[in-house]
Amino acid sequence: MQLKQKPAPTLGLIGGGQLAKMTAQAASQFGCDVVVLERNHDSPATGLASHYLIGDWDNSADLLKLAALADVVTLENEFVDVESLAQLERSGHKIWPTAATMRVVQDKLRQKQTLAAAGLPVPRFFDAPTPEAVMASAANFGWPVLLKKRRNSYDGKGNATVRGPEELGTAWQKLGGDRNALYAEDFVPFAKELAVMITRTRDGHRAIYPVVETTQHEHICHIVKAPAPNAEKQAARAREIAIRAVEAVDGVGSFGVELFLADDGTILINELAPRVHNSGHYTIEACVCSQFENHVRAVLGWPLGSTAMREPAAAMINLLGIGPGSGEPQGLSEALQVEGAFIHVYGKRQSAHGRKMGHVTALGQTIDEALATARRAASAIRFGGEG
Amino acid sequence: MQLKQKPAPTLGLIGGGQLAKMTAQAASQFGCDVVVLERNHDSPATGLASHYLIGDWDNSADLLKLAALADVVTLENEFVDVESLAQLERSGHKIWPTAATMRVVQDKLRQKQTLAAAGLPVPRFFDAPTPEAVMASAANFGWPVLLKKRRNSYDGKGNATVRGPEELGTAWQKLGGDRNALYAEDFVPFAKELAVMITRTRDGHRAIYPVVETTQHEHICHIVKAPAPNAEKQAARAREIAIRAVEAVDGVGSFGVELFLADDGTILINELAPRVHNSGHYTIEACVCSQFENHVRAVLGWPLGSTAMREPAAAMINLLGIGPGSGEPQGLSEALQVEGAFIHVYGKRQSAHGRKMGHVTALGQTIDEALATARRAASAIRFGGEG
Repeated sequence: MQLKQKPAPTLGLIGGGQLAKMTAQAASQFGCDVVVLERNHDSPATGLASHYLIGDWDNSADLLKLAALADVVTLENEFVDVESLAQLERSGHKIWPTAATMRVVQDKLRQKQTLAAAGLPVPRFFDAPTPEAVMASAANFGWPVLLKKRRNSYDGKGNATVRGPEELGTAWQKLGGDRNALYAEDFVPFAKELAVMITRTRDGHRAIYPVVETTQHEHICHIVKAPAPNAEKQAARAREIAIRAVEAVDGVGSFGVELFLADDGTILINELAPRVHNSGHYTIEACVCSQFENHVRAVLGWPLGSTAMREPAAAMINLLGIGPGSGEPQGLSEALQVEGAFIHVYGKRQSAHGRKMGHVTALGQTIDEALATARRAASAIRFGGEG
Repeated sequence: MQLKQKPAPTLGLIGGGQLAKMTAQAASQFGCDVVVLERNHDSPATGLASHYLIGDWDNSADLLKLAALADVVTLENEFVDVESLAQLERSGHKIWPTAATMRVVQDKLRQKQTLAAAGLPVPRFFDAPTPEAVMASAANFGWPVLLKKRRNSYDGKGNATVRGPEELGTAWQKLGGDRNALYAEDFVPFAKELAVMITRTRDGHRAIYPVVETTQHEHICHIVKAPAPNAEKQAARAREIAIRAVEAVDGVGSFGVELFLADDGTILINELAPRVHNSGHYTIEACVCSQFENHVRAVLGWPLGSTAMREPAAAMINLLGIGPGSGEPQGLSEALQVEGAFIHVYGKRQSAHGRKMGHVTALGQTIDEALATARRAASAIRFGGEG
């Protein structure tokens, strides 16, 4: 590679899934080359990368290979070895978000401690090194508690609700508490889940996207409504909390801030995603500058674009695999006939139950209008479950 | 390649320039792999292709290699060997537009003859096999005449205005009339140049984009205004002519129809581009479904998307190289600060005078508003001419 001749910086991406794919699409608009490090060869971002390295996100040598090919490295998931990132930084490579940010965010206990220390509202939480520690703390806090893995969990896979002492053993075993570090949180009886995307530059400028409502299905983000309906009163505070949360971890790039909204209007931070986020996919068509483009701008040191919505409302529906099968969308032609539905197929080779295979975004004058359009298209498409 | 496991068809692209790049971006949204055949390795579409073949568009063996890797083949330029295309078709490969369409369109004389035979308005034209033939015909038609290459010319490079018999020799020599087939047209004193993008499916459905006004700079498309200002009265007829022109050549995919509008409201067809077209770049951000996405839909046999504009007006400005130099945009950061400007950098490694290096699109309530935004961003960026 002759770096000098390139018209734009090369972006290194740790991970080659759909988030990397959509980031690569944004980067390519600016003439950037993209290098991807992934475990498998046929991940969604494969086709968009000028170089594709097969390797492990937590293997220091593989990360070094990636960094050597890129001007700036960023990531699409938080399951990366922080020590390796720190080593790259010491070697002079540019990585955003930084190892220091990732160290805090990827450990959910430490993340919560950092947010709490910054005076931000989080559910009550405590460390859970042993079942005995859970018993002792829960005696104070009261049951139920939510037992969680501190690291490497997503889409609710590392969580277990413990309604009382009698359920603790099973939950401990389910989460592998003897080998995985756990912590516990209050079970929050939230009314709604909100999310805010924030993009923050290296020098602290930030772009703030609208507050959205997310609806989960089997713990997987399923529907996003932008802006969050009936949350106008809480929106300003949600945005303020989200900004302060990203600042508290000195985040650079696009960050997803997941929030709980209680019936009484209380807002608590659920968690931070130190990366582009499913709740921000709608920004591709709905906002002047998407979370992906702003992420690229931020990590490359360029000014941020406008987060203004191009229409009053947007809805995004994830296309989840029904069961095992190919990654081919059944009913795509029918879905493409739905005017105003923006259909994204990630290009995964295999479907599985609940796997994110694509998404549909629609815009409208109202959320209901946008949601109806998105639903018409999404309901026409099926992934897997053929047999 | 294990074709069976792929979630979407693989699209083969003849050519790897910016048109191929933007087509590949649209295809990747649907999970399609893209294979590109180009002469050079570091063309704009390089990074977006899962396979990249180095070869010649007019080399039958190279085209066969491309077709073998793709489910459907399409093209980004018309300078392709039609016999090779026809051979691929006979071998059972799917190519859109077809060899029959390309045979007519790539020969501008034959294109004009076909359009005229369909009753469509074209400038008067005549074959120009020899200087003597030009003299004879021009004696009937009157001077000036526009002498043109029948094949392989673009951006005005194959044209020469001949004001009278005394200029014919120089023009003939300039265009290499002894080795290149030439023809001649009336010199049309047009008031405006208009263009219409049409996407047509294999079974004759079509999507029609707004009529736009194009402004050339040194024969290169420079500014596009959508919709064309002060052409409301002519728009319906322009669209009708454009549709019939694409039908006359049985075009499949996105086609650009370039038109002359005379002061008296007369519309003449300048020429057809059997592919996505510079005058349709604005559709990426300005229309619900872009010319690129609709091209992909059409050639893959999928239903077309809406061509409706998302805001009342759009303006597109090409970023042309000032002179020799790198492909790196100077002033990009400044341009990115212009809110609402959508900046595209093609990623070409070298700038040259007049070379298309990128473009800027902006939207607005009026053309003037959109144009002002696009101009602010475009004027901040420079390619080449450093020394």
